[in-house]
Amino acid sequence: MIKIAILGFGTVGSGVYEVLRKNAASAAKRAGEPVQVKYILDIRDFSSHPDAALFVNSIDPILEDPEIDTVVETIGGTKPAYFYVKSALEAGKNVCTSNKELVATHGAELLAIAVQHRVCFLFEASVGGGTPVITPLHQCLAANVISEVCGIVNGTTNFMLTKMEQEGMSFDEALKEAQNLGYAETIDPSADVDGIDACRKIAILASLVFGSEVHPENIPTRGIREVTAEDVYFTQKMKLAVKLIAYARRNEKAGFACGVEPMVLPAQSMMAGVSDVYNAVLVRGDMLGDTLFYGKGAGKLATASAVVADVIDAAKFGPSVHDSLFWAPTAPQKGKITDEAEHTYYVRVNNLDAGTLKADLGGVVLTLQHHNQTAVLTTPMTAKELEKRKEKLERDGIHVAIALKMLEV
Amino acid sequence: MIKIAILGFGTVGSGVYEVLRKNAASAAKRAGEPVQVKYILDIRDFSSHPDAALFVNSIDPILEDPEIDTVVETIGGTKPAYFYVKSALEAGKNVCTSNKELVATHGAELLAIAVQHRVCFLFEASVGGGTPVITPLHQCLAANVISEVCGIVNGTTNFMLTKMEQEGMSFDEALKEAQNLGYAETIDPSADVDGIDACRKIAILASLVFGSEVHPENIPTRGIREVTAEDVYFTQKMKLAVKLIAYARRNEKAGFACGVEPMVLPAQSMMAGVSDVYNAVLVRGDMLGDTLFYGKGAGKLATASAVVADVIDAAKFGPSVHDSLFWAPTAPQKGKITDEAEHTYYVRVNNLDAGTLKADLGGVVLTLQHHNQTAVLTTPMTAKELEKRKEKLERDGIHVAIALKMLEV
Repeated sequence: MIKIAILGFGTVGSGVYEVLRKNAASAAKRAGEPVQVKYILDIRDFSSHPDAALFVNSIDPILEDPEIDTVVETIGGTKPAYFYVKSALEAGKNVCTSNKELVATHGAELLAIAVQHRVCFLFEASVGGGTPVITPLHQCLAANVISEVCGIVNGTTNFMLTKMEQEGMSFDEALKEAQNLGYAETIDPSADVDGIDACRKIAILASLVFGSEVHPENIPTRGIREVTAEDVYFTQKMKLAVKLIAYARRNEKAGFACGVEPMVLPAQSMMAGVSDVYNAVLVRGDMLGDTLFYGKGAGKLATASAVVADVIDAAKFGPSVHDSLFWAPTAPQKGKITDEAEHTYYVRVNNLDAGTLKADLGGVVLTLQHHNQTAVLTTPMTAKELEKRKEKLERDGIHVAIALKMLEV
Repeated sequence: MIKIAILGFGTVGSGVYEVLRKNAASAAKRAGEPVQVKYILDIRDFSSHPDAALFVNSIDPILEDPEIDTVVETIGGTKPAYFYVKSALEAGKNVCTSNKELVATHGAELLAIAVQHRVCFLFEASVGGGTPVITPLHQCLAANVISEVCGIVNGTTNFMLTKMEQEGMSFDEALKEAQNLGYAETIDPSADVDGIDACRKIAILASLVFGSEVHPENIPTRGIREVTAEDVYFTQKMKLAVKLIAYARRNEKAGFACGVEPMVLPAQSMMAGVSDVYNAVLVRGDMLGDTLFYGKGAGKLATASAVVADVIDAAKFGPSVHDSLFWAPTAPQKGKITDEAEHTYYVRVNNLDAGTLKADLGGVVLTLQHHNQTAVLTTPMTAKELEKRKEKLERDGIHVAIALKMLEV
């Protein structure tokens, strides 16, 4: 019998309880023995819950109970989750979490503690919700050197962009719809629309792929607030789609780059076909080439099922998992990581003077005009060069409304 | 040090050797110790190979060497691979194979032998080439009850259908191109174009998902020979795509179904976006919903990298993997598995008499005519009902050239 404690009985925590109740037989078969919830830590009142006897309001009985093999952390945020998780690992218990903020912020330290105490620290559910990404990445692609990981890791903004693209909604209308459906926070939707959530997820993937800690605060992060109906119009005409892309890339010429930003990509690509709240992560391995993992990026039971898979893995496979699931701590760098590679850019300006626009931007491969707007695709250039050219445009009286990199997939 | 033997130094076997040489450091890091090739079994002459000393022409020294932990089988076919693999498992060695015919034919027996001898029998590379499918399926989706697995598992036919769709090639032209590029066998391309390869792969996935052996000979299998340029024309007009789909599905109403056949699917779906030699497998879990694994379905290094990942898993995780990676033997049933579910059908006839066509087919939701052909989409009906209606059409002098199910994804 595998005995576990659930910390935090919110959406994901109660989902874990539900998955274990509904699929007890198949989970037991796969784990080799039944999985039983012995404690649920939540300070709220659950006295009318059918399993009210399981609820505790302190971490202590859990830490002190030698029968508890694994602690599931689904509180979210870093406080008190960080303290609880650290204490559980130090008490010799495996921890499985869906908490991306915790992993992005304290992952390196918690992994080191797990290794030191010969337990597992697993977090498949922190990226892609229920869609397997982290396990395939470090386990199935173990024979590959990975040069790039990129994708759509925030379902809310992808839903909004889909609504803008397919139903002609404005950003504000799409946001309202996302809020009505519970996809975006009503009071402050910035974690989603400003890319903060995606930033945490790519920090985790980048750290894992490159083996050393990438700090969220060093990752240049732009959300989708600046994307307008005009951009949807122009990009559709150009057979492109706009997606909020999180990426981490290493190449010989242009070093390491990592970021979150809206990008344009060919409408025919698999990544452009990812709509609504779905997520997709593309991984580029030197032996395998490109592979893509696609599925629902959120949802109570989907996310919970990934946590339960981690509980089973921890029971079956033990701490040797950290031979491949590990990254070393680093100090944060000063300022943001810069992208030195050349990209084609989609640029839209509030002006119809195509001649000056072309001259100032250098090479331009495609120009479209609509109302008082012009959109172009540039020849490849670095971000630094684009900045220079934008300054030149401003001096010539042309305002750049938006510039989006082309994702090469 | 993990010491292994490679059986068969063909495309995949030499790829395994190459992957281990190129990515020795990352493989060692992930495995926790270096992986060394100690023997290569091949009866051909490799005396001028830089590692000529590794080559042997008998399985005996490998079976008798207690240092060999894991045997990699990349011979293909069932003879002598079956005997070698069985002997290796019985000698207490893990076996990792890319051989789909072996796994589809003898998987249940070999899994039982592996469990009995407390070793691993792993075969990630047998489906999807290098794309992780089997490990995510049984490990990452461990908390799900899986109701369906379906997808594009043969790269050669997908390449051909892509050429027919995008470049207007005929079946024969597309086949010639696939042969020129080495994707299809020149002498007898039937393993690909008649669906035999896809049948073996879905037999493996179906057995795994449902936990009991599904025999290839019971799986109704149709290839793509009957798909013509006319079908490409009509389906494009209907915003559909034609793909060779392998599927295994269980639902309460219509029981268990499994098959390989060309199907139509919405052009906007992720599965329709899979082009060229790529593969994609969709898995439907009760907690997770739909998830999709996409990548190159073949290729020397891609496939080899999946074999090497299995070698690492075997070393790290050991035989407990078979708590979830297992299926029970069954006797083959008489005849083919039938599909009792209702489907929308795409039907093309060599006739312009739309009135009789509609009357004979019952509900028709869309009709298109071109030259002397008519294509329709029917309302949902079972395969049995379609057969009856086809007979009625034949009696009325209308010949059904092709009928393809709609894939609901």
